Amino acid sequence: MSVTWDGGAPVIVDQRLLPGEVVHRRLTDAAETIEAIRTLAVRGAPAIGIAGAYGLVAALDAAGLASSSGDTLRALVGDLADRIAAARPTAVNLAHDVGRVREAALAAADRGPAAVREAALTEALAIHAADRASCAAIAHHGRMALAGRRRILTHCNTGRLATGGDGTALAVVYALHAAGELDEVLACEARPLLQGGRLTAWELVMAGVPSRVIVDGAAGAAMAAGLVEAVIVGADRIAANGDTANKIGTYALAVLARHHGIPFWVAAPWSTVDPATPDGAAIVVEERDPAEVFGYRDVRWSPAGAGAWNPAFDVTPAELITGIVTDRGTLVAPYGPGIARHARGAEDA
Amino acid sequence: MSVTWDGGAPVIVDQRLLPGEVVHRRLTDAAETIEAIRTLAVRGAPAIGIAGAYGLVAALDAAGLASSSGDTLRALVGDLADRIAAARPTAVNLAHDVGRVREAALAAADRGPAAVREAALTEALAIHAADRASCAAIAHHGRMALAGRRRILTHCNTGRLATGGDGTALAVVYALHAAGELDEVLACEARPLLQGGRLTAWELVMAGVPSRVIVDGAAGAAMAAGLVEAVIVGADRIAANGDTANKIGTYALAVLARHHGIPFWVAAPWSTVDPATPDGAAIVVEERDPAEVFGYRDVRWSPAGAGAWNPAFDVTPAELITGIVTDRGTLVAPYGPGIARHARGAEDA
Repeated sequence: MSVTWDGGAPVIVDQRLLPGEVVHRRLTDAAETIEAIRTLAVRGAPAIGIAGAYGLVAALDAAGLASSSGDTLRALVGDLADRIAAARPTAVNLAHDVGRVREAALAAADRGPAAVREAALTEALAIHAADRASCAAIAHHGRMALAGRRRILTHCNTGRLATGGDGTALAVVYALHAAGELDEVLACEARPLLQGGRLTAWELVMAGVPSRVIVDGAAGAAMAAGLVEAVIVGADRIAANGDTANKIGTYALAVLARHHGIPFWVAAPWSTVDPATPDGAAIVVEERDPAEVFGYRDVRWSPAGAGAWNPAFDVTPAELITGIVTDRGTLVAPYGPGIARHARGAEDA
Repeated sequence: MSVTWDGGAPVIVDQRLLPGEVVHRRLTDAAETIEAIRTLAVRGAPAIGIAGAYGLVAALDAAGLASSSGDTLRALVGDLADRIAAARPTAVNLAHDVGRVREAALAAADRGPAAVREAALTEALAIHAADRASCAAIAHHGRMALAGRRRILTHCNTGRLATGGDGTALAVVYALHAAGELDEVLACEARPLLQGGRLTAWELVMAGVPSRVIVDGAAGAAMAAGLVEAVIVGADRIAANGDTANKIGTYALAVLARHHGIPFWVAAPWSTVDPATPDGAAIVVEERDPAEVFGYRDVRWSPAGAGAWNPAFDVTPAELITGIVTDRGTLVAPYGPGIARHARGAEDA
């Protein structure tokens, strides 16, 4: 739903405008892809990766691939891939998926521009198909992990708009609902960009899932009031020891869940795990424009002269995480050995 | 600044419009006072109490006091006072201050309508003067309580706009700043009505106090990043055991502060303490219009069909509170005996 390939370019739903307007945009070159990723027109770690992968294919077309060969071709692929991969530094999926398309393209470079283009597109389509399968696997494992928990709190948007399939954390919610195992989801609105209040609320209304939106500050009160039996969130990056970077506000939810004895789950595709990042301290959190805090879209409510601290993400330490649901199975503490085992390619149910 | 008496009626700054527009409104009868309190045109527990007290005087004038006497006069005073006091059920100051004006008016009823009006106004002016003195005392005690803590986090608005003086929690911040003992205040924006991002940010910019606004979800990350050495918040009602009702999001800040070993202070005038409320479980938290969660003012970003849970306040249990700064001195745990002693009229420095 979030990203499709129309035969010549990726097409996204501009998520900055949802739910008020449903506007589709074609990303026909590197600049348009980078702009869409940077401005959060496309968002959600897996969706960003897929958009970047398809976007590299379109960027190769736009750059006039046919007139290049050999080292020039290789340099072109490398340059475009580097630029797209840098559009959002915290998003490990983006670098990973763009890197896969780049490698496939480079491996075909000796066979000429047409082969490069075909190899790149084949790889991008495979990345998208794998993400759909990954969402389904996460939904399956997550439903088992949350068995018996009928009141779920989630954060930001991790659903059909954030991925190439049903989502990550929200795919688990969809699976619980489909099985008749869900009473209600509370969706934190996720200021400043309100992906929960806008996008998750929209997805859940569309899908007929019982849900209510809360302001982020109400999560603690909701737990104290008995409205939450489990928390499940997505991840932007998971370090080798299980420390997890995710949307600002996630860390506070983990601390609150621990205080109330409520399980706190992370759900993410394996591609979000970065064994090369030893722990949370090694994750660089991007700080975004303070203007995001001063208002929303065209409305500004803070005074002239005000300052803001606006980190896009925070890092939840592994010791606050009950378990990590991935498409390769569910990990529990200690995360280091499990992550290392999966990273070597072992798979368990 | 928040409420003044212009000789014939209370005048408020309409806080729903700040900081974009500075609009003053005269509250010339009971309906206008009730509407201003209910819609948060005037807000902050002490300011609400003062507005209600002045508003009762104006309401008596508007109701045609001069033509009444005896039991009719008494019934009129009682009815108007009841209606104004009920405008915001969680706000104990409102009931308390309106009750004081009512008692003063009733005590003068046998001397006729002019005496009733004079007694009511005298009492309302005394309530306002006492609040100014109360703010100054809180600032003094709070500055001592927070000595050495140079990075302060606060929530909502508890300053000059919320009181008849310099504020409660924010008065402590002003005092620290005036003494050169403050590096920075972080102001949580306080969704849904954004009293932090709008009003506290505005006050602090006006006063030249170094400050940054954060979204409510960033408070945990700010603590983890070392940006917070103490939290200080106001109170809407403090129960006999120290449990404190305050703006939604306060409880989460208290849990986060405890997790990080950061002191969590409440600052409030003694009038906020309600010895008749045994503990937090006895406090009825008002739920406000879900539409507040779906957007802000004229902007709506949540989809049609969405639901919301929108409690105005939450309750922080006494065991998470480092101390309570009042105009009668600073209380620490166990709060019950200290509150009972002060309630009997004892005062300490």
